[in-house]
Amino acid sequence: MTQTLTQQIDALASGVNSSSELAASALEQAARHAEINAFVALDPDHVMRQAAAADERRRRGRAMSPIDGVPIAIKDNYLTEDYPTTACSGALPLERQGQDATIVANLRKAGAVIFAKTNMHEWAYGATNSTSSFGATRNPCNPGRITGGSSGGSGAAVAAGIVAAALGSDTGGSIRIPSSACGVYGFKPSYGRASRHGVLPLSWSLDAPGPITAALDDIIHLMPFICGDDRNDPATFHSPAFGQIGLVDRPRLINLVGEGLERSDDVDAGVLSALRRSGADVAHRGLDRMSAYFAAWEAILHCEASSYHAELLARNPSGFTALTRAHLEAGTRISGVELLKAQRIRGQLTRQLNGLGDRDALVLPTLPVVAPRIGDDWQSFGGRQVTTQDSMTWFCWLGNLAGLPCISIPCGRSPEGLPIGMMLMGRHGQDEHLLAVARWMDRRINADA
Amino acid sequence: MTQTLTQQIDALASGVNSSSELAASALEQAARHAEINAFVALDPDHVMRQAAAADERRRRGRAMSPIDGVPIAIKDNYLTEDYPTTACSGALPLERQGQDATIVANLRKAGAVIFAKTNMHEWAYGATNSTSSFGATRNPCNPGRITGGSSGGSGAAVAAGIVAAALGSDTGGSIRIPSSACGVYGFKPSYGRASRHGVLPLSWSLDAPGPITAALDDIIHLMPFICGDDRNDPATFHSPAFGQIGLVDRPRLINLVGEGLERSDDVDAGVLSALRRSGADVAHRGLDRMSAYFAAWEAILHCEASSYHAELLARNPSGFTALTRAHLEAGTRISGVELLKAQRIRGQLTRQLNGLGDRDALVLPTLPVVAPRIGDDWQSFGGRQVTTQDSMTWFCWLGNLAGLPCISIPCGRSPEGLPIGMMLMGRHGQDEHLLAVARWMDRRINADA
Repeated sequence: MTQTLTQQIDALASGVNSSSELAASALEQAARHAEINAFVALDPDHVMRQAAAADERRRRGRAMSPIDGVPIAIKDNYLTEDYPTTACSGALPLERQGQDATIVANLRKAGAVIFAKTNMHEWAYGATNSTSSFGATRNPCNPGRITGGSSGGSGAAVAAGIVAAALGSDTGGSIRIPSSACGVYGFKPSYGRASRHGVLPLSWSLDAPGPITAALDDIIHLMPFICGDDRNDPATFHSPAFGQIGLVDRPRLINLVGEGLERSDDVDAGVLSALRRSGADVAHRGLDRMSAYFAAWEAILHCEASSYHAELLARNPSGFTALTRAHLEAGTRISGVELLKAQRIRGQLTRQLNGLGDRDALVLPTLPVVAPRIGDDWQSFGGRQVTTQDSMTWFCWLGNLAGLPCISIPCGRSPEGLPIGMMLMGRHGQDEHLLAVARWMDRRINADA
Repeated sequence: MTQTLTQQIDALASGVNSSSELAASALEQAARHAEINAFVALDPDHVMRQAAAADERRRRGRAMSPIDGVPIAIKDNYLTEDYPTTACSGALPLERQGQDATIVANLRKAGAVIFAKTNMHEWAYGATNSTSSFGATRNPCNPGRITGGSSGGSGAAVAAGIVAAALGSDTGGSIRIPSSACGVYGFKPSYGRASRHGVLPLSWSLDAPGPITAALDDIIHLMPFICGDDRNDPATFHSPAFGQIGLVDRPRLINLVGEGLERSDDVDAGVLSALRRSGADVAHRGLDRMSAYFAAWEAILHCEASSYHAELLARNPSGFTALTRAHLEAGTRISGVELLKAQRIRGQLTRQLNGLGDRDALVLPTLPVVAPRIGDDWQSFGGRQVTTQDSMTWFCWLGNLAGLPCISIPCGRSPEGLPIGMMLMGRHGQDEHLLAVARWMDRRINADA
């Protein structure tokens, strides 16, 4: 019973399936795909109880929303009042349990079945999902490959058909990376449109929570529960409720290429072929100063992460893996003057992107390579040798540094049969328009999928 | 012919005085008060030419605004297309000359006579006005006393009756300090209401330009030329034009007292007596965590200043005095993590101030002491020994850290005859309401002045 969220919503509304049936099927799939290691907390009884309550509501004509009764998985850095929250780190769980992140609370109030907590890269501080106190995740498309991260468990759970939707968080691509590597859909909203309250921070000026789903319309179904003004997150103040997704004409796209934006031949061919199939109006442009922008993203990321973790690291250093501890210690060596420079360069990126010309979206591959082999520390593409970690965030961090809405949609397979993802980046705050453009593209690219 | 700006406006409108008469009188006063060292660039011919042009406009019935023909002095960190700009530092002037700061351009377009550049503390990086490449300023109330700074030349020029209005800038009190020490009026607008474009930065997240004037209504006359959205200063985006100053009823004030807010007995008696005379409704409250807030203000100030000056300091270290160089080098030793902590504490101050209860304004003395003697490095008050530098910013930095509109109004004299200033702090963006409250207070406190 692999379904999209839209299909599940329809099945529940028409009575073709009960929530208990959806939940039982998801549990069965989860057991069948145990080797991908997508979940770190999953209580079948708790799941079935939530589903039974949803069925009871429907029976009485009191469904709380269209998604009442749909199972949704939650990345393990969202606080949940039922499941523990560990960020897949040995340093947690600490005292802050027993409450829901704002987005989880919204979903629960809408009747969603909070299915499980998903595996992630420790503290979201890495993009491979190989470092986790619960062990690495494996890619459902090929268990010898990584999922990418840090929302790797959420990506794997959706790609394996266990759930149609899962929550992730994204500081340098952590929603889009596993979505691309596993062949599903991932959306990072504009900075400030989705509440970070109750999502353990990695870097508060870069972090954005968002969904990973089996289909594009699934994202659209979920966004009203994810976006909006939250009094507990100042970044969302005056943020509008999520609006309607309109219809668009043939979109104008700018495909970003050039120095610092290299990608493998397979990925390049896949994205260009999909762009051609779509029929969109595509111009090609370069982006100056990529290395300065990347350095700015890294400085802000490391500094904010070190600031947030300073106390816990002092209290419980052995709770962190050596690699994460090394990141956190490196962050303390960045000077305030360097950080301020990074913040200024961040503004320059925003201005450069705004000045690139009129368009509906910018285009990049989500990843420069297909899902790497487990254990491979280096990737080669476009004449470069890059660590697997850096190859995962290669393009994605641009969207975080500029705070833009970004979506990854599948756009075909490599010759060896692994998924290729296309990333579309919109203008800040224009999340609805980006999703409209993505839907236009998706219908043309993935018509036969 | 010592006049307020209001009187000058009326005299020009009625024809009682010409702009040339006002300018000639100002030049005469400037010569008479040469010992206070208020000006660092003053070209009498240029002044008289501007005044003659203003008179010619009035003769033709083409005055550009009510302030057309009024002489106004400009702090030496505002770029001016006619006068050089040095920030009273040996490291300047550099290449960036020949353009007006936005506020200077606004005044020039309104017909104001750009009278002179005023002496200031080197780079605005200090609050005594004793450090300047043009030598220290002297207080017109008593030439053995400092003016305070960093807008000390502007404060002295107004207090000596040379001009009715001058521009200053304020990062930790630099408009309010000399206003208080010299017995005149100084207003720091809310962060983001007045354009910083073309004002050499000290600390861009704390800096606010504003006026120093002979009377309260003078500020109200000038603000429409000072406030508003400027495409060259992102902090002003969506900032409204300056509104009308309404009438208020008996205001509710919160007088801040307690640990970290000590002041000398003379100053305390002067402010309390003025509060009593005013008839305002006054409650007394303490403020927690003063030392953490102060450390945050210092960290942000030093870090941003070091960031801004890094290039010039590397290129021309001998252009800075040893003290300023030491400040700038200290700023480079603050870590990014410390800076981020300071930025978080800044948010906590804003929340604490907002939570203090319903009121029209917060009240503090502007300074804990009257104008210090030239050469005195230490001040004693309220059981404390404090450097003269720190005693100048003692209360004022709170308004910069929280971004609030703040005004200093005279409120009497000490037993030795030196001015005492009262500071009123409003809510962010409610500059007009604060000025209405200040006018209510001023009319009662200074009715006989």
